[in-house]
Amino acid sequence: MFELLKTDPESGARLGRLTTPHGVVDTPAFMPVGTQASVKALDPRELREMGAQIILGNTYHLCIRPGMDILRAAGGLHQFMSWPGPILTDSGGFQVFSLAGIRKVKPHGVEFRSHLDGSPLFLGPKEAMEIQRLLGADVAMVFDECPPHDCSAREARAAVERTIRWAGECREQARAPGQQVFGIVQGGVNPALREECAKAVVALEFDGYAIGGVSVGEAEADMLRAVEMTGPFLPPAKARYAMGLGTPAQMVELAARGVDMFDCVLPTRVARNGTAFTRRGTFAIKGGACKAEFRPLEDGCGCFACRHFTRAYIRHLLNVNEILGLRLVSIHNTHFFLQVMRDIRAHLAAGTFGAFRREFIANYVPTRRVLAARARAAAADAC
Amino acid sequence: MFELLKTDPESGARLGRLTTPHGVVDTPAFMPVGTQASVKALDPRELREMGAQIILGNTYHLCIRPGMDILRAAGGLHQFMSWPGPILTDSGGFQVFSLAGIRKVKPHGVEFRSHLDGSPLFLGPKEAMEIQRLLGADVAMVFDECPPHDCSAREARAAVERTIRWAGECREQARAPGQQVFGIVQGGVNPALREECAKAVVALEFDGYAIGGVSVGEAEADMLRAVEMTGPFLPPAKARYAMGLGTPAQMVELAARGVDMFDCVLPTRVARNGTAFTRRGTFAIKGGACKAEFRPLEDGCGCFACRHFTRAYIRHLLNVNEILGLRLVSIHNTHFFLQVMRDIRAHLAAGTFGAFRREFIANYVPTRRVLAARARAAAADAC
Repeated sequence: MFELLKTDPESGARLGRLTTPHGVVDTPAFMPVGTQASVKALDPRELREMGAQIILGNTYHLCIRPGMDILRAAGGLHQFMSWPGPILTDSGGFQVFSLAGIRKVKPHGVEFRSHLDGSPLFLGPKEAMEIQRLLGADVAMVFDECPPHDCSAREARAAVERTIRWAGECREQARAPGQQVFGIVQGGVNPALREECAKAVVALEFDGYAIGGVSVGEAEADMLRAVEMTGPFLPPAKARYAMGLGTPAQMVELAARGVDMFDCVLPTRVARNGTAFTRRGTFAIKGGACKAEFRPLEDGCGCFACRHFTRAYIRHLLNVNEILGLRLVSIHNTHFFLQVMRDIRAHLAAGTFGAFRREFIANYVPTRRVLAARARAAAADAC
Repeated sequence: MFELLKTDPESGARLGRLTTPHGVVDTPAFMPVGTQASVKALDPRELREMGAQIILGNTYHLCIRPGMDILRAAGGLHQFMSWPGPILTDSGGFQVFSLAGIRKVKPHGVEFRSHLDGSPLFLGPKEAMEIQRLLGADVAMVFDECPPHDCSAREARAAVERTIRWAGECREQARAPGQQVFGIVQGGVNPALREECAKAVVALEFDGYAIGGVSVGEAEADMLRAVEMTGPFLPPAKARYAMGLGTPAQMVELAARGVDMFDCVLPTRVARNGTAFTRRGTFAIKGGACKAEFRPLEDGCGCFACRHFTRAYIRHLLNVNEILGLRLVSIHNTHFFLQVMRDIRAHLAAGTFGAFRREFIANYVPTRRVLAARARAAAADAC
């Protein structure tokens, strides 16, 4: 189901291909986030046109609204949202631990209350896999425990132990036809815990492996270390997914560390604040500088927004609160993330990834605005 | 520039064609309203796909934001908003009289303060025509005075006199290449005033004529009477435009009274409240009835929303405040208004308009919700 086509000898970056019931995903791949059965502000046609091959859905949110009765009656998530391509769903674990109010961890899952109306809910390995089966996800994620990055050593160990045990339970559950299941490695920035968790989860033989416990508010250096200390224990022939990451520069650096799949709410989230991504970093469109700039958000960009509209027009739309403004920025930003992946893949295929990486990192200056948005996104998830 | 192709012998409904520098408009025509250089929530491609042949822009709003310096530098409104088709702009008169706070009517226009920041502005025949020239509107409207529907007889007469005098001044101003200018008939529900105003404005020989002073909060019967008492004084060979109207049933009835052009904010305005138009009237999508309805907003509708998405999905999107929800309803509703026009034209061409009109009116039950929204829209304009 995953084919490793080429590994960059210099960095360890990987060119691959994930085949799912709903189509092929070229890796490294970016997955736009469709938390509530919609990638915010975008429609499926726009996603296709910008080259999205796979999107992500959130079990926790979908479970609360519209609810599984509707999603089951609709024939699954693809049908419900009219997205014909591959979908990866998370297990809800991350949200249960980050969003739900009162919660009680039990041996077989978590009792919690909906953040919406306080109604009591229960999610564990069995429930999470059954929901993802009904959703018809092409890739389902195991139900894990993702503790805060600043938790105690004891909490970190307990989370790893539960994650391993729950992974085993998830492994035994029924799947949708052709559905792949990815294991998740926790362990924070503790090398011994990462190794222990990775070895135990890999022993369960999943279809792919995710590095969890990143993008939870930790420093960038810690995030990179967590990925570096996990990689060596993952089988090369299986896909590797860094959950909830990252900025464009981080994705290039993570690809260089062998990561194949990414998801992040940044492109659409910062679009709603009027921030656009470019190869030189981000900029605030509402600022006076764009007032009479009759050129696209990024010169040479092939997205729908840049092919048809100017900075001056988009700035005007944002300033007068026209929905088309944030639509166009969401299109551009999501296209930008997908284009970074296309560039990575092209350079891996051509054997020029090292030079691309150096140039990209040299040009791309992350702005405080975006790093702050990432930190908030990590804290609030994709709500 | 306007060709009258056929007149329905039974009703007086007209099939026609308006040719402008940016293309042809088949009439009767509905013009989606792009107040601030954007038809709310829609992009130009979507408008083209649903068959919009002409859109409307608002001089007053555009003048305030982004301002004429930007619009001039952009090369006009078509270029600025990337809409390649015909545009009709209003003159700003209606907004000056309905939106602006403090205002002082002078012989050559109105001194007023911006509703945005209170800055002093002046708009009169000369200014309104110059702005519409710079915008590059295919059809410019004269600067008129539209008094409230419940004004005194003296105010009504004064407004008609000013409207006539200002129409004469507008007639003398420079135009954009190929630009047509439409005169406006005021006079409320007073037959003598309507006749006087119509005759005087028609004597100035404009390219088309609008019936103003409707959609200003008056009862539907008064609105229809105002149109009926104006029509006989308009030259058959010129286009007739009923400003700010109407509901689907009203448009059918107005077409039957010889109206060729319509504009209304209803389709996108009620979309944002989660209300969808159908041939049987409107319905609230958020209601529980749609919860598990896996059929389109309207069976048989060919719009993008109905071809790809279900009521259950759109209801979910609206309930969780996903932008795609109001996008899809805006697409459907605007498509619906355009489809009513296509149906009217097809039946006029086939000689079956009378039967169509009876069936449409019999099936279409206007809801209080929409009539209330129209009243509010009339009061607040397209803000």
